[in-house]
Amino acid sequence: MTNNRQFLLARRPVGAIQRSDFDFATMPLRALAEGEILIRISHVSLDPAMRGWMNASTDSYMPPVALGDVMRAIAVGRIVESRNPGFVVGDHVTGLLGVQEYAIHNGVGLSKVDPSLAPLPLFLGALGMPGLTAYFGLLDVGQPKEGDTVLVSGAAGAVGALVGQIAKLKGARVIGIAGGADKVRYLVEELGFDAAIDYKTENLAAALRQHAPKGVDVFFDNVGGEILDAALANLAHGARVVICGAISQYNNTDAVTGPSNYLQLLVKRATMRGVMVSDYYHRAMEAITTMGGWIQGGKLKTREHVVQGLDSFPDTFAKLFNGANQGKLVLQVV
Amino acid sequence: MTNNRQFLLARRPVGAIQRSDFDFATMPLRALAEGEILIRISHVSLDPAMRGWMNASTDSYMPPVALGDVMRAIAVGRIVESRNPGFVVGDHVTGLLGVQEYAIHNGVGLSKVDPSLAPLPLFLGALGMPGLTAYFGLLDVGQPKEGDTVLVSGAAGAVGALVGQIAKLKGARVIGIAGGADKVRYLVEELGFDAAIDYKTENLAAALRQHAPKGVDVFFDNVGGEILDAALANLAHGARVVICGAISQYNNTDAVTGPSNYLQLLVKRATMRGVMVSDYYHRAMEAITTMGGWIQGGKLKTREHVVQGLDSFPDTFAKLFNGANQGKLVLQVV
Repeated sequence: MTNNRQFLLARRPVGAIQRSDFDFATMPLRALAEGEILIRISHVSLDPAMRGWMNASTDSYMPPVALGDVMRAIAVGRIVESRNPGFVVGDHVTGLLGVQEYAIHNGVGLSKVDPSLAPLPLFLGALGMPGLTAYFGLLDVGQPKEGDTVLVSGAAGAVGALVGQIAKLKGARVIGIAGGADKVRYLVEELGFDAAIDYKTENLAAALRQHAPKGVDVFFDNVGGEILDAALANLAHGARVVICGAISQYNNTDAVTGPSNYLQLLVKRATMRGVMVSDYYHRAMEAITTMGGWIQGGKLKTREHVVQGLDSFPDTFAKLFNGANQGKLVLQVV
Repeated sequence: MTNNRQFLLARRPVGAIQRSDFDFATMPLRALAEGEILIRISHVSLDPAMRGWMNASTDSYMPPVALGDVMRAIAVGRIVESRNPGFVVGDHVTGLLGVQEYAIHNGVGLSKVDPSLAPLPLFLGALGMPGLTAYFGLLDVGQPKEGDTVLVSGAAGAVGALVGQIAKLKGARVIGIAGGADKVRYLVEELGFDAAIDYKTENLAAALRQHAPKGVDVFFDNVGGEILDAALANLAHGARVVICGAISQYNNTDAVTGPSNYLQLLVKRATMRGVMVSDYYHRAMEAITTMGGWIQGGKLKTREHVVQGLDSFPDTFAKLFNGANQGKLVLQVV
């Protein structure tokens, strides 16, 4: 009998996540029912959205993870047993498989991936949910035009680094906001951003005026809080503000800090709109084909931050919120 | 020699406006230069935007009123002397004429109005700036479809009362938010709103859930603050939030309170956009013709709250912020 190690949500976190918010349990795997498959998970994706799924709020796009349930996460793995005619042992699949070693699944909502085309972690990053978010959030919601100034926060993160590079490929001038000299250097020297601002040491308002003297045409926001306010204060006429996330706010114990400067939407005739990646799943092939081509052609660089060992999950997940991750954060399980 | 009484901005207000923020001066009228006209002002429009013009902020769509200058306001009056071939004595004009008895003007930016078509205060309300704001803000930015639920705050105000009625004419279900039983009754019984919520006595969240169980498709916001947050918490999928103003915030001595619930834009794939009436001046005839027809046909009701006497300006202006006005607030000068 095979055991399955899994992280169960033990309580709703208050503020930053602690290891005690989870139970790290070992459970024997049950036999498959007709139609089910057994997946050996190799890599778990760690994404900011997971923090929201841990809250009790009913006001979100997905129900919260129930207490006692396996922590929800996107993952990729190999099928080791199948009682579903649509899936063959040896196939690789990705989907909401959870923070665990094995998943039993009926196959609905899973996508097959081909590990001969790209390393598996890439299917959790540029060729997965963060990639689709960046591609459609920027191009469909942000609609940058050639010559536009595009600003992106969380610019060294999984989504932000793609947003900036896609914007460059579309002829925009790109400014990134990130925390720390290493990330700022990476954005400018490795990814070809026109400028990058270190929000930890620079005066954001002054830096924005310097790097975007005519204002920001597209702001792609992953961070919220003070960074969103600073960007709103420096919009160009007719700007588009893409709300992708608010990682600065997810661990708040008080209410989210709303953007004081939202009336600049009026002054600048600007638009603020949210992007939800699930609205674009039906167009996934367009993004994956295009970005896959860019990656093959050396035009789009990706960086995966792979941490070994399922048991490190709570500490590794925390890196998303303290800025310690360098690129797309992935937990390697086997 | 004729004297001109005028309100000059004496200092930048801190919080609510006080009479001491103005000098009420009497100045002899100078002679006209070539190209100028002299206008005897009959009615001054009192609008929330004027509060913003009094602040030092450089971050707005118009420069602030300079200290010592006549307080900026839209007004309507009759030409009593002209050295401009485009304007004849006896013509009525409207534009930024200021809070004073007489204006000397070069005519640029003024519009002629015909007092035989409508009472003069109407050109400051439904057939003026508030009318254009309501018409284009709702139809162009909010884009209500037949059967949509439209929510409007400041619903008994100059803009809000028009927004709700226009939405009804377009086949929407309309909910107003206003302060006080009289206003709520007026909205439902006189203007035909489907429902109205008294924010002073009702629980806004509960009332919104009750009156808009499927969520709000279009929210037209004149108020900001808690009302904006409550509306954001009750949006329908794909909602449009029209930011027209934030009268709850204009007297703040601290920063504007931003909407905590702005991440609902993401959850609900909603759009928040500002409307600036000046973007629609080139389409003014469309709105005025249409709304003039509705008024003539009894389909659009207007209410002007006319207060006598220029000297009451500071106290009358304050009515906009304490909710004491009933409809479009106008100061009658002669």
